[in-house]
This record gives sequence, C-alpha cells and structure tokens, in this order.
Amino acid sequence: MTELGKIVVEERPDPDPGPLEAVVRTEAVGVCGSDTAYYKVGRIGDYVVDGPIILGHEVAGEVVKVGSDVTDVRVGDRVAIEPGTPCRNCRECMAGRYHLCPDLVFLATPPYDGALIQQMTIDARNLYPIPDSMTYEEGALLEPLSVGIWGCQRAGLEGGDDVLVTGAGPVGLLAAASARALGAGSVTVTDVSDFRLDLAKQMGFDAEHGDAPGDGDFDVLLECSGAPGVLAQGMRRLRPAGRAAMIGMSKEEAIGLPLSQLNVNELTLSLVNRYNHTWPLAIELVASGRVDVAPLVTHHFSLAESADALTLASRVPDSVKAVIHPQLS
Amino acid sequence: MTELGKIVVEERPDPDPGPLEAVVRTEAVGVCGSDTAYYKVGRIGDYVVDGPIILGHEVAGEVVKVGSDVTDVRVGDRVAIEPGTPCRNCRECMAGRYHLCPDLVFLATPPYDGALIQQMTIDARNLYPIPDSMTYEEGALLEPLSVGIWGCQRAGLEGGDDVLVTGAGPVGLLAAASARALGAGSVTVTDVSDFRLDLAKQMGFDAEHGDAPGDGDFDVLLECSGAPGVLAQGMRRLRPAGRAAMIGMSKEEAIGLPLSQLNVNELTLSLVNRYNHTWPLAIELVASGRVDVAPLVTHHFSLAESADALTLASRVPDSVKAVIHPQLS
Amino acid sequence: MTELGKIVVEERPDPDPGPLEAVVRTEAVGVCGSDTAYYKVGRIGDYVVDGPIILGHEVAGEVVKVGSDVTDVRVGDRVAIEPGTPCRNCRECMAGRYHLCPDLVFLATPPYDGALIQQMTIDARNLYPIPDSMTYEEGALLEPLSVGIWGCQRAGLEGGDDVLVTGAGPVGLLAAASARALGAGSVTVTDVSDFRLDLAKQMGFDAEHGDAPGDGDFDVLLECSGAPGVLAQGMRRLRPAGRAAMIGMSKEEAIGLPLSQLNVNELTLSLVNRYNHTWPLAIELVASGRVDVAPLVTHHFSLAESADALTLASRVPDSVKAVIHPQLS
Amino acid sequence: MTELGKIVVEERPDPDPGPLEAVVRTEAVGVCGSDTAYYKVGRIGDYVVDGPIILGHEVAGEVVKVGSDVTDVRVGDRVAIEPGTPCRNCRECMAGRYHLCPDLVFLATPPYDGALIQQMTIDARNLYPIPDSMTYEEGALLEPLSVGIWGCQRAGLEGGDDVLVTGAGPVGLLAAASARALGAGSVTVTDVSDFRLDLAKQMGFDAEHGDAPGDGDFDVLLECSGAPGVLAQGMRRLRPAGRAAMIGMSKEEAIGLPLSQLNVNELTLSLVNRYNHTWPLAIELVASGRVDVAPLVTHHFSLAESADALTLASRVPDSVKAVIHPQLS
Repeated sequence: MTELGKIVVEERPDPDPGPLEAVVRTEAVGVCGSDTAYYKVGRIGDYVVDGPIILGHEVAGEVVKVGSDVTDVRVGDRVAIEPGTPCRNCRECMAGRYHLCPDLVFLATPPYDGALIQQMTIDARNLYPIPDSMTYEEGALLEPLSVGIWGCQRAGLEGGDDVLVTGAGPVGLLAAASARALGAGSVTVTDVSDFRLDLAKQMGFDAEHGDAPGDGDFDVLLECSGAPGVLAQGMRRLRPAGRAAMIGMSKEEAIGLPLSQLNVNELTLSLVNRYNHTWPLAIELVASGRVDVAPLVTHHFSLAESADALTLASRVPDSVKAVIHPQLS
Repeated sequence: MTELGKIVVEERPDPDPGPLEAVVRTEAVGVCGSDTAYYKVGRIGDYVVDGPIILGHEVAGEVVKVGSDVTDVRVGDRVAIEPGTPCRNCRECMAGRYHLCPDLVFLATPPYDGALIQQMTIDARNLYPIPDSMTYEEGALLEPLSVGIWGCQRAGLEGGDDVLVTGAGPVGLLAAASARALGAGSVTVTDVSDFRLDLAKQMGFDAEHGDAPGDGDFDVLLECSGAPGVLAQGMRRLRPAGRAAMIGMSKEEAIGLPLSQLNVNELTLSLVNRYNHTWPLAIELVASGRVDVAPLVTHHFSLAESADALTLASRVPDSVKAVIHPQLS
Repeated sequence: MTELGKIVVEERPDPDPGPLEAVVRTEAVGVCGSDTAYYKVGRIGDYVVDGPIILGHEVAGEVVKVGSDVTDVRVGDRVAIEPGTPCRNCRECMAGRYHLCPDLVFLATPPYDGALIQQMTIDARNLYPIPDSMTYEEGALLEPLSVGIWGCQRAGLEGGDDVLVTGAGPVGLLAAASARALGAGSVTVTDVSDFRLDLAKQMGFDAEHGDAPGDGDFDVLLECSGAPGVLAQGMRRLRPAGRAAMIGMSKEEAIGLPLSQLNVNELTLSLVNRYNHTWPLAIELVASGRVDVAPLVTHHFSLAESADALTLASRVPDSVKAVIHPQLS
Repeated sequence: MTELGKIVVEERPDPDPGPLEAVVRTEAVGVCGSDTAYYKVGRIGDYVVDGPIILGHEVAGEVVKVGSDVTDVRVGDRVAIEPGTPCRNCRECMAGRYHLCPDLVFLATPPYDGALIQQMTIDARNLYPIPDSMTYEEGALLEPLSVGIWGCQRAGLEGGDDVLVTGAGPVGLLAAASARALGAGSVTVTDVSDFRLDLAKQMGFDAEHGDAPGDGDFDVLLECSGAPGVLAQGMRRLRPAGRAAMIGMSKEEAIGLPLSQLNVNELTLSLVNRYNHTWPLAIELVASGRVDVAPLVTHHFSLAESADALTLASRVPDSVKAVIHPQLS
C-alpha cells in the first residue's frame, strides 16, 4: 500500500534472517478489518499510516531460511505466525503480559510491515509448527481464532456459562467457537445479517436477529460487533455477576453505559487487546476438530487481487472472510 | 420520614422478635448519602419511597431480646449490624453471592424500614458481636467500611498495587483505608474539597486536588465520587492491566467511557453493589487499629435532630460523616 | 443392604413428598466404587454403615409426585438427580460451597438411604430436567461426570493445558472427557488394564500404560486411580506451576509426597470432595455431544441382581460401569 | 567458603560491570538457613557445592559503578538486591513466572557466587532503590520478607483469613507480618522455642506452643518450620476450603499427608519456590511501618566473623537472625 486506497505489487530482494529470525514463504494471509481500515482511512485510533506499508497479519506459510541461533523451527516446517514480537524486558513482558508490551512490533501496524509479501522475515519465536493435516488457510485463521480465545479468557469464561456473542463477523463466529470449545453451556450469536446468522446456525450456535427484543439470560457477553449501543444492550442481558468482554473495535470516541443500572447486577467489563499465548491452544482446537474455521472463508484472492480482497466486506454483503494466497499467480 | 423532606418522631410498640430474630437497642446510626437522597428526592434509581419509611442502615447497638431459635448472639451483646437479609435459597445465595439476592431485604431501602428507631428487629444472623474496645460509633461505621473493603475486593486489589481513590467522602476515605489495610503499595486520594483532602493527608494518604493534571501511574482505581467524568479520567491514569471499581453512585443515566482508547491497556471495570461477608474483616481491621474510622465522624445528632443530620452535607461543607445517637435525649 | 455383603429386595409403602420434595420413579442407577465399598467392608473413612441402608446415588428417573411448594419441576419430567442436599444456612452454604456443608444429606452415605428403590423422595431442588434426547442411563452418569468436571475445576484447568489422567476407571475416563470439553490441549490417560486403555483410546484420548517410564510434560494431573504412589509419580511429571487434583479415593492412611523436590516447580495440589453445581454443565456437555458417556456402561442389571452389580468390578476384569434398572423385572 | 565448614577471607580485584550490570558495595548481608546448610553439609536437595563459593544472598548496599546501558539506577543509590537473575526468554519467564526459570542465576546457589564480598556485580535490573529512612539491615531483610509475602500470595491469602503460621524463625515471623499486612483477620504463630514465641507476641501475633493440642480454626496455613509432621498437623486445623502453603524446607525425602481425611475439607496445598516480583511491595511495607523487620536481627558480625554468623543458630538458641556487615573491619 503506497497511499490511501492504492496497492502496488513490487519486487523486493530476498530477505536474510538475523540470528534469531526466520524467513517464511507465505502461503495464506487472511484479511482483517484493520487491514481494510488502514487501506481506506489510513488509521486506527492512534496508529496512523504515514508511508508505504505492507498489510496483512493473519498468516501461515513454510520456513525457507533460519538464522544461526534458531533452534525451535527448521527449514521446511509448516508454520502459523503470531504477529506480535515483544521486547522481553519491560514490566509487562516480565509480568506475563507481553501482548501489552509498549514496544511490541506488530505486523502491518504502522510503522511495521506485514505479511502480504511472498517471503517475510520475523523472530523465529513467533512461529508455531502446524500439523500436516492443517491447511495453510486454517493456519492463517488461528490469528482471529486467537482473538476469540483471548476474549473468552478475558471474560473469565467458566464451564457451563451461557454466552451471548454480539456480531457474527469472523471474530464473533470464532469467539463463539472458542466459547463452546472452552466449555460454554449455551452459545447465542446475534447479528443484523441473515447470511451471517445462517452461518452461525450452520456452525451449531443459537442465532438471534440483533433487533430482537432481548429476553434471554446470559452469564457472559462477548461484544464483537463494534456497533453503537450494542455493548450496553448486551450488558443489560447479563445475569447477576455477569461478565462482558469488549472484543470489537468501536469507532465511537466514547461509549455510553448505564452503569448506575448495571451495578445492581455487579457486572464486570473487561477490555481486550489482541491475545496472549493462544497459538498452542488454537492449533489444538483446530487440529482436533473441536473448532472448524473453514466455513468462514468465503472468498479467495491472489496477491495481485489484494485491493479486491481488502474491499470485499463492503462490496459483497454475503461474505465473511477473504484469504489472499501470495504464491498464487 | 412521612413525606419528602419531613421527619417525624413517633412512639411504636416494643417489638417482639421472631424465632430467628433479635431486637437491638440502637446506639449509633451513621447517615449515608442514600438516606439523604431518599429524604430529599424520594428515590435512588429504581428504588422509590412511596409511603412512610424509617431511614438509616449504618448501625450498632446492644441486643435486648432474642428469638427462641437464636444461638449465636445473646442479650447484652454489643453488635454491629449487616443491613441486608438474603433469602438463602436462590441461585445467587447458593453461589455465595447473597448480596445479589433478588429478594434481599435491606434496611431503609423501600419498602423496608431502617435503623432510626430505638429498638429494631432483624434476623439474628445479621448481627456481629464487637469487642468492648470498639465504640458503637465505630460499629456503625463498619457498614461504609464494608463498602470500601468490598470495592477493593471487586477491583482485585493485590498486595503492592498503587491505588487511586477518586472522591474523599466517607466511602472514599474508607476505601482508601481498606486498600492500605489490604496491602496496597501507595494510596492516592483526590477530591475538590481542601477540607477533605486535609483529612485524607491526616489519615496518611497521598492527596491530590481533583483538577490537577494527571501524570501518575496506578494499578487500581476506586471511583468513589459519583461525579461526572471522573471514572473516565481515572481510568486514563491506570497502567496496562489496570483495574477499576465503580463504587460511587452516579446520577448520570449513561456514563461515557473512551473504551477504544482504554482497551490498549486492557483495563477491567468492575461494578459494585454493596458488599459480601465483610463484617468479620471490618471488625478485625478496626479492632486491631489497622483502620481508624473515628476521624470521619465530624458531627453528632439526637434522633429528634435527624433532619439536621440528613442535610448536613449540603449545609456544612466542612463535614464528612454525621452520626445519630437514637438513645440520646 | 441389611448386613455386610447381603442385599434384600423389600416392599416399602409408596412415599409422600414433603412440601419442597418430589418423588421420582428411578429408571437407571449407576454403581459406584463407594457402593461396592459399603457393600463389602461397610465403611469409607469415617462413614460407617451401622444398620440397613439403601445403596445407590447415581440416578435418573421420572417425577411422579411433587410437594405443595415445588415450582421448578412437574410430574412427568425426566430428571437427573444431584444426590447431596445442603442446609442452606451454614458458613459453607452461604459462601457458595454447599458441597462442604457439614450437614449435607447425601444419598447412600450412612445414615441416609439411596436410590436403589423404585420410588425415591428427595428435595425437588436437587432435580435437573434432562432433554428427551438423553437416556436415563446417561442421566445417571451425570453424577460421575460431575466428579470429573469438578476435579478439572478444582485443578484450575485452563484452555490449552496438557492434562494427565491417572486411572481409566469411570471417574478417570469422565475426568478426561471433562478436561477435553473444557479446552484441554492434550489429554493422556494411564492405567494398568489394557481393556481400559483401549476404551480410553476409543474415546479419543492418548493412552499410556501405567508402568511406562514417564517422560512427558503436563500442566495438570487428575489423579483418579487411588492407587499407592500414583499421585507422587504423576506430580513428578508436571511442568513448573503445574496443578494436581486428587480425585481418586486412596485407602492409604497417609500418602507420601516428595514435597522438597516438587516445590522447585511450585506445584499446587487440590483435594476434591465431590462437586458443586455441576449438573447444568454436565447436561449441556452430554446433550450437545461434547461428552459421550455411553461407552462406559458395559453391564446392565435388574434390582434383584443388585448384588451382582455391586461385585462386578472384582468379578469381571473387562468391565467399567454397571447400571441397575430398578423398574426392570 | 573453600571447603565444608571453612570460610576464608580473600582479596579479589575490583569488579567491572557489564553493560547492563552494576557494582554494589555491600553493607548488610543476612544469614539464611540455606547459607548454613551449604556451610555445614554442602548441599540442599540437588544443589551441591563442589568448589569454592561465596555465600550470602540477603543483601543491601550502595551502587558504586554502573554499566554503559544501565538507566534505572545510579552511582550512589542505596539499593536492596533481588538475588535471582532470570533468562527473560523461556516459557516460564514469558508467562510471568521468572522465578521458575530453569536458567535462573541465583546468588550463593552453586555454582554461582553470593554477596559476602565487599563489592559484588549483578544485573542492574535486580536492584531496587530504598528510601533514606530505611537501614541497609532492613534492606537486606527484604529478601526473607519476600519469602513471606510470596508464601501468602501462593496460599491465596484473602482479607479476613485467620492464619496459622507454624515456625517462628525469621521466615515464619516475616510470613506472619506479611499476612497481617495483607489483611489477615487473625495471625497465630506456633513454635517450640519460648524465646521465639515471646518475640512473636512482641510483634503482635497470637503465639501458641507447638505441642499444644490444636483446637483452633484457620483458613490459611503457612508452614515455615520444615519440621516433620508439622505440615500434616497444621492442615488438620484448617477449615473447609482451607489453603496451605509449604514455605519451610523439609529434610524429609517424602512427607506423609492424610489426604483421604483432608479431602473432606477440600483443602489446597501450594508449594513455594522463593518469590516473584515482591521487592516493590516489601519496600513499601517496611518504609510505611506496616512491617517492622528490625526485631528479628539479634546478632551482628564482620566479614571476618562469617563462620560465627553461619553457626549462630546452633550455638545460640535464643537467636533469630544474624547480619554480617562486610564493610565493618
């Protein structure tokens, strides 16, 4: 991406890894709403694109080179990639919260480049080998699945909880799948798109139109829509001691919550920033069949078609997730 | 209180306790902002006064009669009173959250009468004997201290946390005292009243004027002011993984929070509804000197002067807590 | 059971429920190791059989009468039964730990009768309606499944944990199934019986002979064998910060643990006493197919054949769980 | 220490710090039971002294040199020293459990040298500035205080818990002080030494002779004696849902616990390995007067008298803690 709304395919020299790095031939890159936001408006909150940037951070591929000190992965390994590289030294890193590291280097988050390149270099400790039975596409989708898993963990999901997921986009559906895999009693998904609600039903969740009057009772809310008013509405449907996690990114500067009413039920609201150490579990859940990410992928693109992939959501209402295959000509 | 803004002193027949009840001769009753709100505007949220009501729920006294099945307290015991009586049967009670019981009977919360009466009847299981070294005044203040303790527990306060308390009213100061007694690293209190900030300093806390530009870093926020904008402002001063508890009751219908910014730090916001099983700890903290509640009591009243007590806060800026002594003539 | 090793079938008058009770026509009763222990040796720890007792506490059936104040279940409901009835008043009950209530009335635990009777009376709040798709046999096995679920919860099982289950009896296999349903990364089961290890494999777990030299690494140990030395051996296989739950009942008076070695890894050992509020989750896990309890039931008996059912384990090595069908003639 | 039971004072060249290191002029070094064990028997568990070693790991002093990349401390700073340096890269370090890092470099733990040297070099990130109001002696005792704090945290100490501390040595007394500072309801200390029990009383704790028949009820046990049978005996005195932490190092190969009895109360036993991130809290507790470590120091020594210091406990029954002052001539 050289400027707002403009993607250019360029030749770059083959990269060489540093001692602790590896080079990965990218095979599948999922398109995320944040990629689309950078492409269309050039910013997300305080992150502003102010120069050319390579987008893409949901990625899997094959290791083609490793640095001299790399021991955990080898050339030829099929790997999924955790996109954030922490400093390993600060207060947050030492407290086990490396994802909140103020110096986190994150793929496709300005000023750092991302994964829409045929060979990318990254700290080898971010690579997780995936079994042969797992496709690269599935490997790329471990990233949004990680968002769902971590959202459940931030919400303090416990076995048996009745869970309400607001928003049936990729993150909402994967949060729902995570909740079920972590022992939720029931999982209900809401959206305003019938196409997406059908997909939710097909994936085994209870589905409910977002405008339906709420009368259910839930223990946990996973807000994945980012739409105005949905967080407050969802929190009203929680039982006493209910827990909400705000996973979806809202565009609103301030979100209004009727806290004086909600405090009767002594709710807890957990904000969420990506994920922490979720790849091993994500791999297990997909490898064992407990989570099926495949139904989410509705459209495929080559690297040259990246612009189409980035605008899919607004062009094709009945779409969920676009995957770009960088080695596809 | 027979109507809005009108307190009448009446003779009532001596009460007889049910089998599990006790009658307590009240010796000290603290005045809470909720008493004042019922007196002045007749409602707090969904709780509406629609008939005569006896106010007062911060209370200590001496047991004068016990029901036939009461075993844990005896006539002559000096006791503090937990004002809420749960059903002991519902989902919340059985989950250890009796304070969220939908059928909770709570002193001076419509339609239930409170403690501004010389002899009051209550479930004997709500009575906690206090040592002879503790005054009845201190016994009455175990109730707002309980609010502070539970606020700390809801916030997940851990030893070493740097704590910001916004609002230096009775609840704020007792929340600050609770935080210190539970192992807070540092405790900073903010307010707009110099009188209250001086009291905070005198009690050993760092004090800061509420309009001061925030530049500190905190792990925990205990919002006790109920004032507009303070929750959002306080949350901005939290470190990554910071935790906020909203203890103060706000009059605003919806509170605006910049969640899209705050989620970078992955904060947690816990709403708070009174307290759960805090009297034993409150008694220990006061009895052992780890918390000193005495400095809070700035004014004293007889039962006949209740109206003055209920309006103290608005009449006398340099006041903190009014205590009514029902046996005082 | 009238005396040690002697079961007699008697006629009893039809029971009438108290106001909060219900009468259930029992349809399936699982045999537990504790039933067998009472039958053979007349005691488990401090619980001693000193008169005739009706055994059986894993039970499902149909409601045939309800007391005057019962509102949550109706005649005709198919129900699973939680066998413990707490006092709802003590410190433990009010803290949400009703299963540790010192006055707990538990089916088939001396001096209380159990479920091996065609019509049994119990507090209606212990009944959980089960869906039509669930068999009574499955309904009865929700009790040992509850043991497994609670064991996982006591161990602090988190999504992604690698779990070692020692002992592939009914409780071990259901603990393994619970662990997987609650998000375990991997689940490995050990036993000395090849028959049971085959069953473990068939249920989808990794299986390992109990004498195999340990070289794996686990986050969680669920000890379900009760065999000497197994707890210590299993704890040695845990990673740093590993957590063990002792679910199996041991006959040893004192269990030796090499704590001075184990403390390097800062392990946690949680003892387990039955379960707390697990039926709703157990029903969901079985109803949704996430846990399949059916493969455990290897043998069936009528009420008249109870003695055979109680001695199955020692008579038939290749057995797992016996179910008695009280209505079977 | 050049060989078992032999301490030699040698001249060493002035050290130069690496880029991230600092050199500290040691001012106070506490003697720990582990120092004495290495001195007398040359090993603790798997740690074996097989060459000359400098003992001492409870230490405070003044920074005299800093490496080129050190930013957080400066020459002249008075500092306490956390003795363990983690790798910051492994699974444990990244999970926030750096104290379980398998490559932890720990002062005076073979093969690493310790603090009984006038100038010692260490990673500057292990240094914590202490206020002028704190003595170096107090600074050195932050290490055993850290053991007490972490023991409380491992036990899941909650405000209001009644705490039993078995063993009134330095660690036991500081665990008791930690428990009180973290909000314990009551704190009872047991020992067999009247001298130490008197000290416990003087520090404000309930004291009880170790042979007294137990009839109290406790929520938390902090085992700090390491003596045979004490852990089991203490666990028997816990209430339902009680929690025990084993802080004391036992010499027994296997510790016998009556788990089949203890599981009725569903206890939890947490093993303890030193501490994690406790210095900031330890400094606050001592600086604010909430913990007073001074009464523990009963004897003082120069570097030349180290051998006397190391044998103090066995030579002088009425002793608690020896402090060596390396700059003392």
